[in-house]
Amino acid sequence: MQTHRAKRVEITIEAVMQSRLTDALTKAGVTGYTVLPVLGGSGRSGPWSRSGQVSRASGMVQVVCIIRPERVDDLLDAAFAVVERHIGIVSVSDCDVLRAERF
Amino acid sequence: MQTHRAKRVEITIEAVMQSRLTDALTKAGVTGYTVLPVLGGSGRSGPWSRSGQVSRASGMVQVVCIIRPERVDDLLDAAFAVVERHIGIVSVSDCDVLRAERF
Amino acid sequence: MQTHRAKRVEITIEAVMQSRLTDALTKAGVTGYTVLPVLGGSGRSGPWSRSGQVSRASGMVQVVCIIRPERVDDLLDAAFAVVERHIGIVSVSDCDVLRAERF
Repeated sequence: MQTHRAKRVEITIEAVMQSRLTDALTKAGVTGYTVLPVLGGSGRSGPWSRSGQVSRASGMVQVVCIIRPERVDDLLDAAFAVVERHIGIVSVSDCDVLRAERF
Repeated sequence: MQTHRAKRVEITIEAVMQSRLTDALTKAGVTGYTVLPVLGGSGRSGPWSRSGQVSRASGMVQVVCIIRPERVDDLLDAAFAVVERHIGIVSVSDCDVLRAERF
Repeated sequence: MQTHRAKRVEITIEAVMQSRLTDALTKAGVTGYTVLPVLGGSGRSGPWSRSGQVSRASGMVQVVCIIRPERVDDLLDAAFAVVERHIGIVSVSDCDVLRAERF
């Protein structure tokens, strides 16, 4: 099956800032992303959790984008320009993607 | 600690089609997968969200399989044969896995 | 944008054992991790699901750590020492991470 090299960018961000981030990604030309809920975690400021809440009003979410390798820098610039203070860790990994017309 | 090369396949699919996908994966010999909830996202048809619902009746889920590299093609063939129209993006990445007897 | 090589460790574990795992990770010097809810899955003992429950009292979670490559072995030793029986699959993949001061 034909695959295409791509990058998987995983951004953990405060849930309340999700739409600002995805708006910025959209303006930067990113058409595909997926938002995953996060139950809790730990970062520079210590551990935190949603205390069993499933509301999106608190806590963090993970925004995952699969994009063409040459577009990673634009995506990251766009993300950090808008929401740098609210972003936790950002990781980028290589992947192969099927059906390139969908991304 | 001993590790083994494997592939991590991440399939984003409509939640209502999840069992058809996992049944197909099982028939193709995949014994291990994990299903993650998805809050929202954006694809070819624009952004969408679950509107705060936690029901599995709407929205998308992510099915993640860790499999031996030589089995990737069979897995993808099985997935696409059954649920091609309902699958969003599919990505495949390299990983190392511990305890090979578990997958 | 400057990036740093890192490892992404993904541990699927019974939800009730989550705090024992993250306590062990913290003692091993891991400061950053993210916990994702899991809806269901399949492993050695067959398929399982949360039956629509969103409680953390049942089912599994995924703990994702982004760490420096040289620390992977310590992390895995710490995790397995405490919770080996309760861990499902563990995968390790390469990634690049931004803002190294945050991990």
